[in-house]
Amino acid sequence: MIRPAELIERKRDGEELAPGEIAELILGYARDEIPDYQLAAFCMAVYFRGLSGAETSALTDAMIRSGETIDLGAELGRKVVDKHSTGGVGDKTSLAVGPIVATCGVPFGKMSGRGLGHTGGTLDKLESIPGFRVELSHEEFVSQVREVGIAVIGQTADLVPADKRLYALRDVTATVDNVSLIAASIMSKKLAAGAEAIVLDVKVGDGAFMKTLPAARELAETMRELGRRAGREVVCLLTDMEQPLGHAVGNALEVREAVATLRGQGPADFEELVLEASARLLALSDLGLDLETARPRARETLADGSALAAYHRWISAQGGDPDEDALPSAPVVRDVPAQRDGYVTRLRATAIGLAALRLGAGRRGKDDAIDHAVGIQLAAKEGDWVAAGSPLATIHARNETSAESAAAEFLAAVELGDAAPARRAIVLDVIA
Amino acid sequence: MIRPAELIERKRDGEELAPGEIAELILGYARDEIPDYQLAAFCMAVYFRGLSGAETSALTDAMIRSGETIDLGAELGRKVVDKHSTGGVGDKTSLAVGPIVATCGVPFGKMSGRGLGHTGGTLDKLESIPGFRVELSHEEFVSQVREVGIAVIGQTADLVPADKRLYALRDVTATVDNVSLIAASIMSKKLAAGAEAIVLDVKVGDGAFMKTLPAARELAETMRELGRRAGREVVCLLTDMEQPLGHAVGNALEVREAVATLRGQGPADFEELVLEASARLLALSDLGLDLETARPRARETLADGSALAAYHRWISAQGGDPDEDALPSAPVVRDVPAQRDGYVTRLRATAIGLAALRLGAGRRGKDDAIDHAVGIQLAAKEGDWVAAGSPLATIHARNETSAESAAAEFLAAVELGDAAPARRAIVLDVIA
Repeated sequence: MIRPAELIERKRDGEELAPGEIAELILGYARDEIPDYQLAAFCMAVYFRGLSGAETSALTDAMIRSGETIDLGAELGRKVVDKHSTGGVGDKTSLAVGPIVATCGVPFGKMSGRGLGHTGGTLDKLESIPGFRVELSHEEFVSQVREVGIAVIGQTADLVPADKRLYALRDVTATVDNVSLIAASIMSKKLAAGAEAIVLDVKVGDGAFMKTLPAARELAETMRELGRRAGREVVCLLTDMEQPLGHAVGNALEVREAVATLRGQGPADFEELVLEASARLLALSDLGLDLETARPRARETLADGSALAAYHRWISAQGGDPDEDALPSAPVVRDVPAQRDGYVTRLRATAIGLAALRLGAGRRGKDDAIDHAVGIQLAAKEGDWVAAGSPLATIHARNETSAESAAAEFLAAVELGDAAPARRAIVLDVIA
Repeated sequence: MIRPAELIERKRDGEELAPGEIAELILGYARDEIPDYQLAAFCMAVYFRGLSGAETSALTDAMIRSGETIDLGAELGRKVVDKHSTGGVGDKTSLAVGPIVATCGVPFGKMSGRGLGHTGGTLDKLESIPGFRVELSHEEFVSQVREVGIAVIGQTADLVPADKRLYALRDVTATVDNVSLIAASIMSKKLAAGAEAIVLDVKVGDGAFMKTLPAARELAETMRELGRRAGREVVCLLTDMEQPLGHAVGNALEVREAVATLRGQGPADFEELVLEASARLLALSDLGLDLETARPRARETLADGSALAAYHRWISAQGGDPDEDALPSAPVVRDVPAQRDGYVTRLRATAIGLAALRLGAGRRGKDDAIDHAVGIQLAAKEGDWVAAGSPLATIHARNETSAESAAAEFLAAVELGDAAPARRAIVLDVIA
């Protein structure tokens, strides 16, 4: 075994490490044979020197080998597709995409994460549904996907344990922000979960990890390359996260918006993204559809009520009450009026996500509790014209004090102007 | 208190941290409030981004504040001078400098370190003297300096504990090699030990930490600046470490060479360095000498036997037997003959240091035991002409096998050529 300090030094000096050397570091770390401080120094060296494609692939592979893997496709006898978002504000896409693709006949068995900081997590949103169980045994998970067509659960601890530890370490050592480390973290989980084809929603802009289109493109290309090396198909949608996605920010509010979308009454940007992600998944599936056929097929499931019905079956199967009236409501609901006439020129996603977090919708630390009822419902999006005094948003709060500060925070995140801003498409680019 | 991760991130991004922020990191680390992995990431960020003069000074200061400090000058009622070497092969300078300056009337109370890797340490050399005690209580130390004029002990654990921990961490995270971290590590110990004026022997070349003169000059200037900010005088000698210093490499062998030098029979390069370092110390002392007066004064102590007598008093005072015959001898002594006629054009210091280490003279890990008797005695130095078959060196070994491999290693470290190489001065530059 090579001394870890020597591997750190060689990476520090810009050398490319061999796949076996990367594996030694990561698996040694996972086995508690290499301490946190050596991995911290290694990650900082990677921050400055980067990883080659081969190194990133070796890192991904080693993280997968640190735990168990799942072959859902073999268990179902189907080609399995998966979807992942790099995280944003108001991103409830999976809640709507799952029922759409399931109702089209594509099994949707997904492991999701929780939110941290200004971004939300699918599991937290699902847990705002009374009774919903995010922990299923592997057998329950597989049989629900087989029988109901859809199941969404938390990631099991056995899957990619090295990533979990490494991510926690990177979080406190200022080494999160590296494209190779991010790509390996995301892809190791997706590959270990066994999907043969993956749609990655790479968020771009103020509320996203990747602030610029070139940075997002680099991440997308790195992840696509990791998929290619592992023999999986990967399609990346680069999507706008300058402003929140849709109108709802906050767990129960977002579930309501996803359900409205399944009913064909969703916000335009959110519906567009949901349909595009769904169509991409259908086109990657074993249904034998091309994209041009998949798009109207996805849209049809909203019009004919079949996606909504699939949602009801899914939520019920996982123990939840699918009735919207069962979702928790916040005791204090107040509008935030526009202070002048004008076009909404900016709705800063991070600031709005943080305002929702401070209302109780999110967590600062990973063990914080969440208030599922609270959040912010936007009444206008960028490009909309508002009259002075008409609502920009509605705050759903636990009490008056927190409503008050969230309203002030929200107002500080909004800019109004005299000229309509250029409209941005929700899907900025596709890397397939 | 600012989150450590935020400080790491700002350093990572090339920002200058405030003195209070550096102190927070270092003192938090010393108090076990900030974990190893955050300091490891910080040191790697420093490796890539460097530290400003103000940051390096703040780091030095925080390390000093992590423990106790000593004011030897106040206890003695004298201006106290100190000497430090950055470490090399065959460097027994302090063993000869101490008695010279002490016999001139300048108190020499020094804390020394142990060797690691190919470089030796003064404490290890002293411990080859039967009975010599490197651990004295503070009272014993001060009274010996007062009464005998000289005492050399190990660094107490109370002095600069943060440096000790940080250095051990840097050693295993590939973050040793940064001029600011090196300078702060050395200077924090020297400043905490209370010297008002310091002569730093910065080694340059193959066997030294600093491989080139510009790198050594940068370290010297950084340390001088740290001294200046702390109100201390610092003189740096940049000295050659391409080949070993003097002829002896190995603990008891080096003590013999130091004693021979005090008798006026030392190798030319070593004697020159010893006299220059001694003269610089005398000129910085409270004796009121200038350098031109100090140089002959130092030389005189060799000629008149007073330095040798001071050595005897010193060793006896610390419990050691000053008789050279009391030093341990190795059972196997064999010559390494030159394989051709020629000039010695290279004597690689690191390789020779490592050959001595493998004989048992040094340690790989900090807890390894040392064989004080073994080592390598050079018969020729760079520039000397040797006849085929005449000895290049004598190996002092524990057994035939290790003598054999040391001889082979030594030969591989030597180059012979037809033309005499240019002679290098031992003192390459002085930064005062």
